[in-house]
Amino acid sequence: MTEFIPPGTRFATLPSPFPMKRGGELHGARIAYETWGALNAARDNAVLIVTGLSPDAHAAANEGDPEAGWWEAMLGPGKPIDSDRWFVVCVNSLGSCKGSTGPASVNPDTGDLYRLAFPELSIEDIADAAVHVARSLGIEQLACVIGNSMGGMTALALLARHPSFARSHINISGAARALPFSIAIRSLQREAIRLDPKWNNGRYDEQNYPESGMRMARKLGVITYRSALEWDGRFGRVRLDSDRRDDEDPFGLEFEVESYLEGHARRFVRRFDPNCYLYLSRCMDWFDLGESCGGSADDGLARIRIGRALAIGVHTDILFPLQQQQQIADGLRAGGNQAAFLALESPQGHDAFLVDIDRFGPAVSGFLAML
Amino acid sequence: MTEFIPPGTRFATLPSPFPMKRGGELHGARIAYETWGALNAARDNAVLIVTGLSPDAHAAANEGDPEAGWWEAMLGPGKPIDSDRWFVVCVNSLGSCKGSTGPASVNPDTGDLYRLAFPELSIEDIADAAVHVARSLGIEQLACVIGNSMGGMTALALLARHPSFARSHINISGAARALPFSIAIRSLQREAIRLDPKWNNGRYDEQNYPESGMRMARKLGVITYRSALEWDGRFGRVRLDSDRRDDEDPFGLEFEVESYLEGHARRFVRRFDPNCYLYLSRCMDWFDLGESCGGSADDGLARIRIGRALAIGVHTDILFPLQQQQQIADGLRAGGNQAAFLALESPQGHDAFLVDIDRFGPAVSGFLAML
Repeated sequence: MTEFIPPGTRFATLPSPFPMKRGGELHGARIAYETWGALNAARDNAVLIVTGLSPDAHAAANEGDPEAGWWEAMLGPGKPIDSDRWFVVCVNSLGSCKGSTGPASVNPDTGDLYRLAFPELSIEDIADAAVHVARSLGIEQLACVIGNSMGGMTALALLARHPSFARSHINISGAARALPFSIAIRSLQREAIRLDPKWNNGRYDEQNYPESGMRMARKLGVITYRSALEWDGRFGRVRLDSDRRDDEDPFGLEFEVESYLEGHARRFVRRFDPNCYLYLSRCMDWFDLGESCGGSADDGLARIRIGRALAIGVHTDILFPLQQQQQIADGLRAGGNQAAFLALESPQGHDAFLVDIDRFGPAVSGFLAML
Repeated sequence: MTEFIPPGTRFATLPSPFPMKRGGELHGARIAYETWGALNAARDNAVLIVTGLSPDAHAAANEGDPEAGWWEAMLGPGKPIDSDRWFVVCVNSLGSCKGSTGPASVNPDTGDLYRLAFPELSIEDIADAAVHVARSLGIEQLACVIGNSMGGMTALALLARHPSFARSHINISGAARALPFSIAIRSLQREAIRLDPKWNNGRYDEQNYPESGMRMARKLGVITYRSALEWDGRFGRVRLDSDRRDDEDPFGLEFEVESYLEGHARRFVRRFDPNCYLYLSRCMDWFDLGESCGGSADDGLARIRIGRALAIGVHTDILFPLQQQQQIADGLRAGGNQAAFLALESPQGHDAFLVDIDRFGPAVSGFLAML
């Protein structure tokens, strides 16, 4: 499969072998990353961003790539994550297809694509790989690690496995463990891909590609990333104009909301590798911070030592519901940490952090200003 | 396709031709129904139940069929819908495959199954057919029409189209119009069926059956019928025992919640006709009570004349959210009707009315006691 690598991407090589938590190891693996700003002489101004399932490392425009990134309004000179002050690193997750080694990469031991021969991927592996990238850039300690969605899981794993590597943490719409509603959604997304005959146990190519399965998975994702409240205001019951409808198809697109989902699916299906999607999706189900200490997620949180932390969530998030960010803040405080919980009224659901910069911007800049 | 008709089912024949709202007409169509209790001499004790998408007419045990029905705890002698007092009729929706005429029935004009040649089905057609059944049983006016979920839409259409046919109404987890979140969910369910190559534009049979598409559709339905809150308590992160897992399948079932969905899907896929599912699903998307008067859903509600009404919803319903039952009560009151709104704290989401009898039972029996 083609990988989908933004033009400004840089690469860090992981130690070889790189051991994987659930068994197996990688040889010559690499992680894609981008940076903004500069590391200061004291090397104490580094901020690491770990991402959700699908983003690449191009969070915002920079010298290597002037195109807008997926968090453009949040990151850059004078923005909430201010690259005039901070040296910001965003990594593409291990296991992804946006430049980091994953199931869509060539296995150096065989010369073939890994596909399902890639070792089982865990959130902890993604965290370990991100730490290697930061260290390779001369960073001995992060001023802050910021994680969104799946990245919120990755950041917690990083804090648990690499004590004192970060002085502070912002957890955005994240979770200390996966709960059954989101496991059910992700399981169904994976089933949609696996049921597509063209998935062919992971042995697809450009010509025989599980496009139907990926469409279903992406549409279900988009439904759970946004909120009913937002869609009522945005789409209501508005129908497509007749020239955008296929009158030959009795069950074809009719409402604007269906066309919106269709557009999202079309933009996604050929730009994300199906096997990588399966691996990243499954590693979220597996995540439970409690495993790090043989206890509950609360126990795992209470063992973390961090200077300051902020957990942000939104009322309309059905995938990582607000109680999960409350749990993060409560759990960190129970361990004696200074941790705040911020519940935002954003109507946009789980993805609010990408679009509701009016609320997320001040929350993030306010926290970073205290450091 | 085989139809799935409970043994105690009775049938009423619709007038022939039976005109359909969106065009076309049916000849010799029939509606499946069951009854409990007896019509009194004054013929003023009739209660009609109209259902959600999938139930048949066997709401509870009766003389014709002693097996428990889908609302067993709610309906029968001494139960909240007390068949010692009320003559209760439950109809299987027009367009369904549980005995009523629908896409899985034989078209008398051709001798073949209707399949996609069945006329476009609307909620209003389902309501009109239910009224015919009641009239055929000697009922001139209903004491109450009770509608759950899609049946809540059907009941509102009935009230709008057949003024004074019912003296009171209980709307349970219903809606006066479909909103984009639920349209998106249903659109995705339909797409799952249509993407299954075995659907074959509706021309499947028992040997070539769109089982994968129906599995996906049902699992997505079950996810939206229940709630994250209930599942946290019920399943948490509990894994299947190793003897219930297929270790050969790296993406196979692992968590209890996945097995729960799998069980629901298995029980459903061969017991509901895929084309009927498509028709019933689509007619919910189309429903907007405002169409009945050329205005908004609120306008449609305000034009209804009803003695008393009660709209019940639950906080955890993501498919027909609580605001929609609030809208029903408010809209009916705006028209000068006596209408109450009851928000229940049930954790079970949209399907709570099927299982949370501790809350729904008293609400329904309290309302019926006032009549």
